[in-house]
Amino acid sequence: MDEKIRIGVAGYGNLGRGVEMAIARNPDMQLVGVFSRRDPASIELLTQAVPVHKFDDIEQFRDQIDVLILCGGSKNDLPEQGPALATLFNTIDSFDTHNKIPEYFAAMDSASCVGERTSIISVGWDPGVFSLNRLFGEAILPEGETYTFWGKGLSQGHSDAIRRVPGVKAGVQYTIPSAEAMELVRSGSQPQLSTREKHTRECHVVLEAGADAKAVEHAIVSMPDYFADYDTTVHFISEEELRSNHSAMPHGGFVIRSGQTGDGSKQVIEYSLKLGSNPEFTAAVLVAYARAAFRLHKKGVHGAHSVLDIAPGLLSPKSPAQLRKELL
Amino acid sequence: MDEKIRIGVAGYGNLGRGVEMAIARNPDMQLVGVFSRRDPASIELLTQAVPVHKFDDIEQFRDQIDVLILCGGSKNDLPEQGPALATLFNTIDSFDTHNKIPEYFAAMDSASCVGERTSIISVGWDPGVFSLNRLFGEAILPEGETYTFWGKGLSQGHSDAIRRVPGVKAGVQYTIPSAEAMELVRSGSQPQLSTREKHTRECHVVLEAGADAKAVEHAIVSMPDYFADYDTTVHFISEEELRSNHSAMPHGGFVIRSGQTGDGSKQVIEYSLKLGSNPEFTAAVLVAYARAAFRLHKKGVHGAHSVLDIAPGLLSPKSPAQLRKELL
Repeated sequence: MDEKIRIGVAGYGNLGRGVEMAIARNPDMQLVGVFSRRDPASIELLTQAVPVHKFDDIEQFRDQIDVLILCGGSKNDLPEQGPALATLFNTIDSFDTHNKIPEYFAAMDSASCVGERTSIISVGWDPGVFSLNRLFGEAILPEGETYTFWGKGLSQGHSDAIRRVPGVKAGVQYTIPSAEAMELVRSGSQPQLSTREKHTRECHVVLEAGADAKAVEHAIVSMPDYFADYDTTVHFISEEELRSNHSAMPHGGFVIRSGQTGDGSKQVIEYSLKLGSNPEFTAAVLVAYARAAFRLHKKGVHGAHSVLDIAPGLLSPKSPAQLRKELL
Repeated sequence: MDEKIRIGVAGYGNLGRGVEMAIARNPDMQLVGVFSRRDPASIELLTQAVPVHKFDDIEQFRDQIDVLILCGGSKNDLPEQGPALATLFNTIDSFDTHNKIPEYFAAMDSASCVGERTSIISVGWDPGVFSLNRLFGEAILPEGETYTFWGKGLSQGHSDAIRRVPGVKAGVQYTIPSAEAMELVRSGSQPQLSTREKHTRECHVVLEAGADAKAVEHAIVSMPDYFADYDTTVHFISEEELRSNHSAMPHGGFVIRSGQTGDGSKQVIEYSLKLGSNPEFTAAVLVAYARAAFRLHKKGVHGAHSVLDIAPGLLSPKSPAQLRKELL
């Protein structure tokens, strides 16, 4: 067997832990180090006996890591860390601030080119494999409509918004796609759907002692940007119920392309994910794309890429001949 | 706007007609000629006023065609036509004899390299976009199982088999995926499924005058390879009913990857097609990949490829920057 692809993990939250576990399921890869801004002595890894290093020492490891997977957040971490690290390492990240992707791509491309490194940005499921399915849908069926539904799933941003409401001690929010809207889309009728028609929002909230439930409910359902445009239901639950029933991080969603060919034949392409763990799935996608970045760099292909630029065969440990034989 | 991609169509059956109609929906392409082994004067095109030429004259058009889409059959046409034409033209085909793909790829690769041309083989939905989804599934979730279900759809091969039974005047066969099997797979339980458990087969048969219905039914349901391993139902219908209710060519299917991450979180990826017209959809995929072949050839990339080798962005008329902005 060839030497294993040596992976570094920058940032050790839910996503970093997911990457650690995903590497253990890919025999052609090995985790060589985790980098954290926390005190390394305070971090215990889940499955692998590898060292945890200080984030600031990362530059010393440039010759020991084939691909560095950036597991920081898109808001504060990646815009700064990404370009700084992309001159030193081949990188994979899950940058997901959709409207800032062109700007982030430019910064990553320039950093990767300067360092003669290879980066793949915005990897995961949305952006990521959902983006791929939007592309395949519109390229194959140029006349048609693309619909994305999210859920049922726990939304981190909306859960944070709930927790900022006075009187709320803890809570989670689930985004739920409308079954009626989805059936309409699947029928091929290409409906126009409003925001309210596509998704509903369900909140499970633990109140502070003495809080006014009616006031909390009103504050949530009328919150602009987050809830006002949706049909939102609020359930009040105990702290114990929150812990035992709502601590997993399920998510998922659907990309549906509905188009017509010929004299009007209806064609519907549907891609869906049902994820028991959102961060673990995102991590699994990051790890598959790390294999592609490693190979591209070996071939001398530098600069930034997105999933749209990557030939699918590069994701698999199998040879092109084996893939043709087994999968075509 | 750049000059249009000039497309030739080799073979004018259902697939060739589908390609003709698909090109009309792609403004960056133009159909420049159709080639047929039939008398060109006997062929009337559906939508486009372009000439029909004799197949044997095709070599004269090598400088007027950017990509030739081969619309012949996999059994008798492509194994011979493919390599002969791939030295002269950039080609796209839908070669679908799964167990002969490695051999066909080798012949096409060598022919394309000799002619410094670019070919993409086995394009369509299975092989084609289903193959892509098998690849993404196992690359992202290396521990798991992949399931393919076909239908509900009209199977050409099984319909032909019915029509060879003595006493059958005409008939069609639909392949139907088992709803129970699919629910089991979607649950993430990774069942082992027998051939009989995955699909059923439904036949609509018009009898010859005086034929023995019982004998025909028995001959069909006990036919080895085609029906004996399945639960098959046979409906006897009139010729008029066959014509009015069973002349469309719907098809579709599902590729489902069920895997686990982390400590056993269940993750399910599902891709499905619901096709009003099977040949028109296949044609739409061929046309999108013609764009990729054109671009690869322009970049000097020669030889044979499959869908697994093609970066998805090459399928779209949009620029990489526009794709990143709109689809990521």
